[in-house]
Amino acid sequence: MRAARLIPALAWLRVYDRDALASDLLAAVIVTIMLIPQSLAYAMLAGLPPHVGLYASILPLVGYALFGSSRALAVGPVAVVSLMTAAAIGKIAAPGSPEYLAAAIALAALSGLCLLALGIARLGFLANLLSHPVISGFITASGILIAASQLRHILGVPGGGDTLIEIARSLALHVDAANLPTLAIGALAIGFLIWVRSRLKPLLLGLGLHRRLADVATKAGPIAAVLATTLAVSWLGLAGDGVRTVGDIPRGLPPLTLPPFDASLWLDLLPAAILISLVGFVESVSVAQTLAAKKRQRIDPNQELVGLGAANVAAAFSGGYPVTGGFARSVVNFDAGAETPMAGVLTAAGIALAAAFLTPLFFNLPTATLAATIIVAVLALVDLPAIRRTFVYSKSDFTAMAATILVVLGVGIEAGIVTGIAVSILLYLWRTSRPHMAIVGQVPGTEHFRNVLRHQVITSERVLTVRVDESLYFANTRYLEDRIYDLVAARPKLAHVVLMCPAVNFIDASALESLETIVLRLKAAGVIFHLSEVKGPVMDRLQRSSFLEHLTGEVFLSQYHAMARLDPATTCRAAQAALPAPSTGMKVA
Amino acid sequence: MRAARLIPALAWLRVYDRDALASDLLAAVIVTIMLIPQSLAYAMLAGLPPHVGLYASILPLVGYALFGSSRALAVGPVAVVSLMTAAAIGKIAAPGSPEYLAAAIALAALSGLCLLALGIARLGFLANLLSHPVISGFITASGILIAASQLRHILGVPGGGDTLIEIARSLALHVDAANLPTLAIGALAIGFLIWVRSRLKPLLLGLGLHRRLADVATKAGPIAAVLATTLAVSWLGLAGDGVRTVGDIPRGLPPLTLPPFDASLWLDLLPAAILISLVGFVESVSVAQTLAAKKRQRIDPNQELVGLGAANVAAAFSGGYPVTGGFARSVVNFDAGAETPMAGVLTAAGIALAAAFLTPLFFNLPTATLAATIIVAVLALVDLPAIRRTFVYSKSDFTAMAATILVVLGVGIEAGIVTGIAVSILLYLWRTSRPHMAIVGQVPGTEHFRNVLRHQVITSERVLTVRVDESLYFANTRYLEDRIYDLVAARPKLAHVVLMCPAVNFIDASALESLETIVLRLKAAGVIFHLSEVKGPVMDRLQRSSFLEHLTGEVFLSQYHAMARLDPATTCRAAQAALPAPSTGMKVA
Repeated sequence: MRAARLIPALAWLRVYDRDALASDLLAAVIVTIMLIPQSLAYAMLAGLPPHVGLYASILPLVGYALFGSSRALAVGPVAVVSLMTAAAIGKIAAPGSPEYLAAAIALAALSGLCLLALGIARLGFLANLLSHPVISGFITASGILIAASQLRHILGVPGGGDTLIEIARSLALHVDAANLPTLAIGALAIGFLIWVRSRLKPLLLGLGLHRRLADVATKAGPIAAVLATTLAVSWLGLAGDGVRTVGDIPRGLPPLTLPPFDASLWLDLLPAAILISLVGFVESVSVAQTLAAKKRQRIDPNQELVGLGAANVAAAFSGGYPVTGGFARSVVNFDAGAETPMAGVLTAAGIALAAAFLTPLFFNLPTATLAATIIVAVLALVDLPAIRRTFVYSKSDFTAMAATILVVLGVGIEAGIVTGIAVSILLYLWRTSRPHMAIVGQVPGTEHFRNVLRHQVITSERVLTVRVDESLYFANTRYLEDRIYDLVAARPKLAHVVLMCPAVNFIDASALESLETIVLRLKAAGVIFHLSEVKGPVMDRLQRSSFLEHLTGEVFLSQYHAMARLDPATTCRAAQAALPAPSTGMKVA
Repeated sequence: MRAARLIPALAWLRVYDRDALASDLLAAVIVTIMLIPQSLAYAMLAGLPPHVGLYASILPLVGYALFGSSRALAVGPVAVVSLMTAAAIGKIAAPGSPEYLAAAIALAALSGLCLLALGIARLGFLANLLSHPVISGFITASGILIAASQLRHILGVPGGGDTLIEIARSLALHVDAANLPTLAIGALAIGFLIWVRSRLKPLLLGLGLHRRLADVATKAGPIAAVLATTLAVSWLGLAGDGVRTVGDIPRGLPPLTLPPFDASLWLDLLPAAILISLVGFVESVSVAQTLAAKKRQRIDPNQELVGLGAANVAAAFSGGYPVTGGFARSVVNFDAGAETPMAGVLTAAGIALAAAFLTPLFFNLPTATLAATIIVAVLALVDLPAIRRTFVYSKSDFTAMAATILVVLGVGIEAGIVTGIAVSILLYLWRTSRPHMAIVGQVPGTEHFRNVLRHQVITSERVLTVRVDESLYFANTRYLEDRIYDLVAARPKLAHVVLMCPAVNFIDASALESLETIVLRLKAAGVIFHLSEVKGPVMDRLQRSSFLEHLTGEVFLSQYHAMARLDPATTCRAAQAALPAPSTGMKVA
C-alpha cells in the first residue's frame, strides 16, 4: 500500500489490460508525431542542439509515468520553460558551448530536486502564490516574446535579445540582410500551420472523414511541414542559397549524463530553478486537474510535484533539459484516448525510435520551419481578452497582470514572474490592510444589526458599534487603531465601543497588542471597550493571552446581547419598533 | 493652510510663547546631556569617527522639527540604525577610509529620499509589513549582537564580525591580549551605568530630591561616566598603558557635505537604505504615537515619513549618517516636559555648542566607556519575555520571530529583517490559504445556521451548506475547490451545494475563475451551486463579471431563504422544532 502511494504506477499497472494498451498505443502514436517537431523546435528556443529536445522527450516521460498522478498529462519540453531555460543559462555560458549544455543539465537536475523537495515537504501550496491573472499575463507576454524571438529564424538573420525592445532593435538592424528563400519557407510554413489549425479539421470532416482520423491529420500538421520543407531544401539545394538547416544530429539513444557538481553554478541557477519549478508545476497541475475532472479522477498536487521532479531528474541523467506537462500535448493525449500513463511510456519509445533511426532525415530540415511551429504554437497561448476581462472585474488583479506583462516584455521573463508574484502579494496585503469597517445599528423590529450606510437602523448615542470585516493581523492593526481613535474622538458623549467580530477569523500577535493598546487608550479617555460575536477559535486563542484580564468591557455572545446590556432603553425601543419596508436588492452589508 | 499642512512647524510656531520656550529649554538641556555620549558612541558603533555622531545630532534635528508631526520625538543616531549602517557600508569600503564616510553620507541621502518618497506617495502602509513579533525579535537580536560587538572595546582588543559566531570567534582569538586598564574602565563603567539605571533614582527620591531633578541626575549617568573615565585617563596617564581613547576630534560646526553622486554606489546601497528607512520609521512612529496618545494628540504617519526624510537629507548635507527617532531619548524629552519640536531645535543648538567648543575635552575619553554606554543602552531593549508570550499565543507569530532572531544572530542584521518580513507574509498567506470551512445546519427552533461540529443542528440530505470564513483570493482558491469536490464526492444523494459567504469580504479574479470552474464541474455531476449571504460590495463586483450568467443556482439573501427554497420540508420542520438547551460558553462558531 505504501509503495503504491509513493509510486502510483503500481496501482494502474496491476489492472492493466489489452484494451487499455490499444487505447494508449493510439494516443502515443499521435503524441509522438506531434512531439518530434516540437521537441526539436523547443530545444532550439532554449538555445540547445535539436537532439537535446529529443533526449528530453524520452526518459523524463518514463519518470513521470512512474511517479505522476495524472493519467493524461504529456510531459516534455514546452515553450515557456524553454525560454526560461535560455534566459537562466544564457547568463552563465554562451549558447553552443559545452558549458551551456552542462548548465542546462544542471538546471534540469536542480529543478527536479526543487520539485521533489516541495512534493516531499508537501509545499505544493507555494504554487498558489501565482494568481490566475499573473499566470495568464505571464503566458501571454511570454508567447509574444517567444514569437518575436523566432522572427530572426524566419528572416534567416543573426540576432538575439532578451526583451521585446532588444529583439526589435536586433531585427531592425539585420532585416536588410534577410534571406529570401528562408523567408519564403518560414512564411509558407506559418501560413500552412495556421490553415491546418483553423481550417483543416472542418474540411476533412466535411469530406466525410472519421472524427478521430481528422484529429490525427490536424495534429500531424507540423510534421507535414517538417517533411515538406526538408524535401524542398534537399531537392532544390536551398542549403547553398543560405537556408539554415538543423544539420548533423547525433544518431542514437540518449547518453547517460551527470549534472556538473559545481556548488557556485548550482547556487547561481537556484533562483531560476525555483521559478521554473513553480511555473512548470502550475501549468502542469492545472491542465492535469482539468483533464482529470472530465473523468471524475483526482489529482494529488504533491504527488504531481514528485512526478515532475522525477521527470526532471531523469532529464538531467539523460542529456536533456527542464521539462514539464504541456497544455496542448496533454489535451491531444487525452482526446486521443490515453487511458493510463503507459501512453507516456509508449510515446517515449516512439521518440527513442526517432532518435535512434530518424535523425539523419532532419539534416536538411530548415530552422525556419521549426521557428514557424513555435510561433504558431505560442501565439495560440496569447489571451488578450483575458486582459480586458480582468480589467473590468478588478483593478488590483489587472495591476498585477499588467505589471507582469510589461516586465516580461521590457525586462525579462524571470523578472516578470517575480514582479507578478510580488505585486499580487503586496496588493493583497494592501487590500486587507484597509479592512472594510462599518458602523452598525439595529434594524427596527429585529435583533439584527446592519451597516448604517446601507440600512435604516437605530443607533445609540452612548454606544458605538463598529463591525470589522477582516481578520486582524499585522498589516491592518495600525488602520484599525487609527479608525477607532478617529471615531471616538468625533463622539464626545460616548461611553462604550463595541467591536463586532463576526468576520474576524483570527487575531495575530500584532493585532492582539493593538487591541491591548486600544483598550488602554480608550480607558484613559473614559470609554469602555467590548467585543461581540467573537468566533470560537478566535476566543480560544484570546483565552491563552492576558488580553481578557486587561479588557475593560465584556465579550458578548451576540451584538443584541451587547446592546441590551449597554443601552437597554434604545435597544428595547428599537426591537419593538415597526419593521421598515423590506429592501428590494439582494444586498447584505 | 497648504503650507501649514506641508510644514507642521508653521502651525505651532504661530502660537509659540515664553512658557513653551521654558519647558522646551529644560527638555533640551536634559536631552543634550544624554545625547552627547550617545552620539559619540553610536558613531563608533557605525564604524565612523565620533564627531560624525555629533554632526548627525545637529541639522537632522532641525529638519525633523520643521517637517515632523510629533511634538516629542527626539531624532538622532540610534543603536539599531547605526549597526545597520555599519553592515551596509562595511560591504563597500573599509572603516576609517574616506570612501566609508562618503558611503555613510550617501546612505543618509538615499534613506532620506526613500522616506520622502514613501511619505509623498503616502505609502506609510509599507511599514505595516513589519509585524510586532518580527520587530520585537529584530530589536532583541540586534541588542544582543550590538552588545557582543562592543565587548572588544571593553577588552581593548582588535576584532570584528557580523554574526554572533564570528564575533565570539574573534573575541576568543584575542581574549588573551586583553588590556587590563581598559577592562577595568569598561567593567566599572558598565557597573556604574547599570547601578544608575536601576538604583540611583529611588535613592535620590529617598533622599528627598525633587522628582524632576532625580530624573535629570539619572539621565546624566552616561555623561558622568564619560567625565570620570576621561579624567582618570588624563590623571593616571592610562593612554600610555594601552587604553584606547577617542583622540583628536575636529572642532567646529558640521561642514557642508554633498553625497557622492555615483549611480552604482547608490544602487548598491538602495536595499539597505529601504530597510533602514522602514526599520527607522517603524521605531519612530510607534514611540511618537505612544507619546502623542498620552496628550490626546495625533500622529500622521505619512507626515512622519516626510519629517524623518528631511532629517536624513539634512544629515547627508552636514556630514552625518542615517538617523531616526530614538525610543529612550524621546521618552526623556517627553518626561522632561518638551511642548513642541522647538525642544529639538534647542537640543541641536546644544550639540552644536558641544561640537564647537567641547571636542578637545573628549581627547582622553576611553572608547571602553562609549562601549559601556552602548551595551547598557541596548541590553535594555532585549525583551526575552516577549518571546515566551508570543510562543504561547501563536506558533506562527513565534516562527516569524524566531526566524528573525536566528537569522540576525547567525547571518546578519539585514538578512534577519528580510527573513522576518518574508516569513510573516508567507505564514499569513499559508494561514489564509487554508480557510476555515464549516458545514452548517439549522439551529432547531430558529432561522440561524451554525457549524455542525460545534452545535446541535439539523441538516438536509439533498442540500449541503458550506460556510467559508475567509475572503476568496488566489492563495486559497485551490483549497476551496479541493474541499468542495471532496465534500460532494462523499455525498451521492446531493442535489444542491450552497456556499455561505457572510465572512467573504472580497473575491479576486483567481477565485472568480475557481468559482466558475466549480459551477461547471458540479453541473456535470448533476449538482446545482448556490451562494448565500453575499455581502454588498462583493455582489456589486460579481455583477461586473459574467459569473452570475453561468451560475446554475441562485444567490440567496439569507441562508434561511436558501434552505426554505431548496429543502422546504426539512427547513420548516427544523424551524418549528423545540429550541435546544442554551449553550453555556461565549462561543459563536
